Amino acid sequence: MKPINQTRRTLLTTTGSAIGLASIGAISSLTPAAKAFASTQGDKAPALPGYASWKDANSLIIHSANTMETKRTAFGSGIITPLDRLFVRNNITPPSEDIMIDPDAWTVQIEGVKNPITLSVAELKNLGVTTVAMVLQCSGNGRAYFPSKPSGTQWTVGAAGCVVFTGVPVKTILEHVGGMDSSAKYMTGTGGEPIPEGLDPNTIQVERSVPLEGIEDALLAWEINGQPLPLAHGGPLRLVVPGYTGVNNIKYIKRLAFTPEQSAANIQQSGYRMAPPGEKGAPVHASVWTMPVKSWITHPGEPDSQLKAGNLQIQGLAMGGTTDVTEVEVSIDGGKNWQTAQFVGPDLGPYAWRQFVLPVNLKAGSYTLVSRAKNKAGDVQPADRVENNRGYLNNSWEDHAITIMVA
Amino acid sequence: MKPINQTRRTLLTTTGSAIGLASIGAISSLTPAAKAFASTQGDKAPALPGYASWKDANSLIIHSANTMETKRTAFGSGIITPLDRLFVRNNITPPSEDIMIDPDAWTVQIEGVKNPITLSVAELKNLGVTTVAMVLQCSGNGRAYFPSKPSGTQWTVGAAGCVVFTGVPVKTILEHVGGMDSSAKYMTGTGGEPIPEGLDPNTIQVERSVPLEGIEDALLAWEINGQPLPLAHGGPLRLVVPGYTGVNNIKYIKRLAFTPEQSAANIQQSGYRMAPPGEKGAPVHASVWTMPVKSWITHPGEPDSQLKAGNLQIQGLAMGGTTDVTEVEVSIDGGKNWQTAQFVGPDLGPYAWRQFVLPVNLKAGSYTLVSRAKNKAGDVQPADRVENNRGYLNNSWEDHAITIMVA
Repeated sequence: MKPINQTRRTLLTTTGSAIGLASIGAISSLTPAAKAFASTQGDKAPALPGYASWKDANSLIIHSANTMETKRTAFGSGIITPLDRLFVRNNITPPSEDIMIDPDAWTVQIEGVKNPITLSVAELKNLGVTTVAMVLQCSGNGRAYFPSKPSGTQWTVGAAGCVVFTGVPVKTILEHVGGMDSSAKYMTGTGGEPIPEGLDPNTIQVERSVPLEGIEDALLAWEINGQPLPLAHGGPLRLVVPGYTGVNNIKYIKRLAFTPEQSAANIQQSGYRMAPPGEKGAPVHASVWTMPVKSWITHPGEPDSQLKAGNLQIQGLAMGGTTDVTEVEVSIDGGKNWQTAQFVGPDLGPYAWRQFVLPVNLKAGSYTLVSRAKNKAGDVQPADRVENNRGYLNNSWEDHAITIMVA
Repeated sequence: MKPINQTRRTLLTTTGSAIGLASIGAISSLTPAAKAFASTQGDKAPALPGYASWKDANSLIIHSANTMETKRTAFGSGIITPLDRLFVRNNITPPSEDIMIDPDAWTVQIEGVKNPITLSVAELKNLGVTTVAMVLQCSGNGRAYFPSKPSGTQWTVGAAGCVVFTGVPVKTILEHVGGMDSSAKYMTGTGGEPIPEGLDPNTIQVERSVPLEGIEDALLAWEINGQPLPLAHGGPLRLVVPGYTGVNNIKYIKRLAFTPEQSAANIQQSGYRMAPPGEKGAPVHASVWTMPVKSWITHPGEPDSQLKAGNLQIQGLAMGGTTDVTEVEVSIDGGKNWQTAQFVGPDLGPYAWRQFVLPVNLKAGSYTLVSRAKNKAGDVQPADRVENNRGYLNNSWEDHAITIMVA
């Protein structure tokens, strides 16, 4: 590795002078430039977009500038997903990175409360602080496994990660402003993405409403995994609703309102609805809110892996959705016979995922590995997905199977 | 930030071609080059050494090429310390980065057991896997607060971090080799640092022995925080002994032996001993093994901070040592009056630290903030340090005070 370090140093010395130091200090997680370079120059890896250039391209499947997922083999075994491997999914182009120059100056309007107020991140930090470990997962994770091939990013398992958010509880904010309006039935968050002039905001505005139950453990968060929340993940400030799919966790939040109705934005009215195949989403269909119980195998994680006969530690991740995952079974024959796997490592609470391991000794042959989780509410991960027009909420254990060859 | 991304891209395009892609792929956590650059060009920040060039220099106090600590303000609030902010402390120069080209090929000799064996990392990975969240802390963390000014790195609070290690339990290895010799009284790990020819290995060899109790939760670890263990933290393979100070967690481990005697190396015989001030360490003095209960405030974390009157969330970190931390009290008047702080976020087990918060409302004035932790064994963090010649194991709450000005 010495040569690389030499090269790095040369690279820094010869070109670094163009970098503004003051601005660098303001970036929450700075660019692993060599890594980004590797991604842009590799045989297959497409380029990471600027706002996510600090990501580890080797750990990601880059679908587009707004959609990148973690490779099945790249989750690691540390429970918390390293930030540079965490998936990215933006509905529309993110705001300019200028909003990260002084993150503490970002403001959010609190509405639909007794005493409406605009609060800066600096003020929120003095109001209260807590930390939650939780699975962040795109509503469409697993879409690639729908035989109906719904439109949208063809996510496999990697539009998900387990992260630690730090921020102020929404309940603490509500106390501060004298409580919500008595007419409130939803918590509605509005994203800070700029809306091009002349467009009806409802057509593209990222604005989502969740039922009031979502408030219980919700935060306005300014940190992720112990670092200031980067733009790619919604910094300077993100609404975090543990147990709810990614889209309900509003990035660059500029307005948090307690409303009698759901948002009028398309993304709420027709988007993210469990419409039957062939139908367009509408308010009559269930909104994509909470996540179901789910698990998948991460090791071995390469489809059609060629492995040596002998001992193998089958490993994976399991989440309960909105409550603790309590059990995981693993099958090496595609679901005919099941064995109970062991959880390993600390339990980070009801919204986090857990790692599981099943030690096996395999002879030569072909094996289809699947896992099936149960949660505290008694929900069992089903064999089949719930069919829907856009490919949301896939937690089918059959769909997440991986086949390996042992020789 | 746009200008920076532009600069990054230019930097990559113009100089990147010299970087070997194959080698880059082998590095566990790649270089944030712009960040390293900032560190080398800043007004005060000295350069990071090559093997730690991917660290966030802005979050570190760089004492030397082998010693870097996390700034008190840079621990973050996500429980787990981000890897690029984690302290580095090497007793001697680390091995060449060449050992990271194929980490799975690294081998460790298992001795003092029924069936001695040499195992590769690849073999260890198939033997068993678990994960532990734990405080990793240099024996001399807090040395800077000893009025006697012991020699050694002048660590303040930052030669510590809470990390997640993944590896195979030592107990699983022992089962695999038929158990340890009946004469064994210590687990002795030998580091893989090269010994210059002609030198008596005992003079510089990093070889430490811990009592057999240390085996209970010990691992041979190949991952940290979900990423392959980098060289700077002991990769490809490190002995991890939860609850024991950093030096007992042998990096680049090449030999794990179960021995009737403690290692003959100086680092065991005379080094890391609780010798009274003025005396040289010797076997008669207690070895520096387990960590005591300890806590410190991280926010506000700048000494002599100037803050505005009003609400403030005093935050900090507390560890039990070898058992759970159960309570933390905070004083804003230097220890005259105490209030119980709240723990926030998930509990990651007995070896991890916990975050605590005490909300206060401060009027203008000067405040001396201190924290005092208790653990499950009933140990209370003391006011005074235990005086010793080399400044080990400082857990005095008085020494860790921070004074702020409120106006």
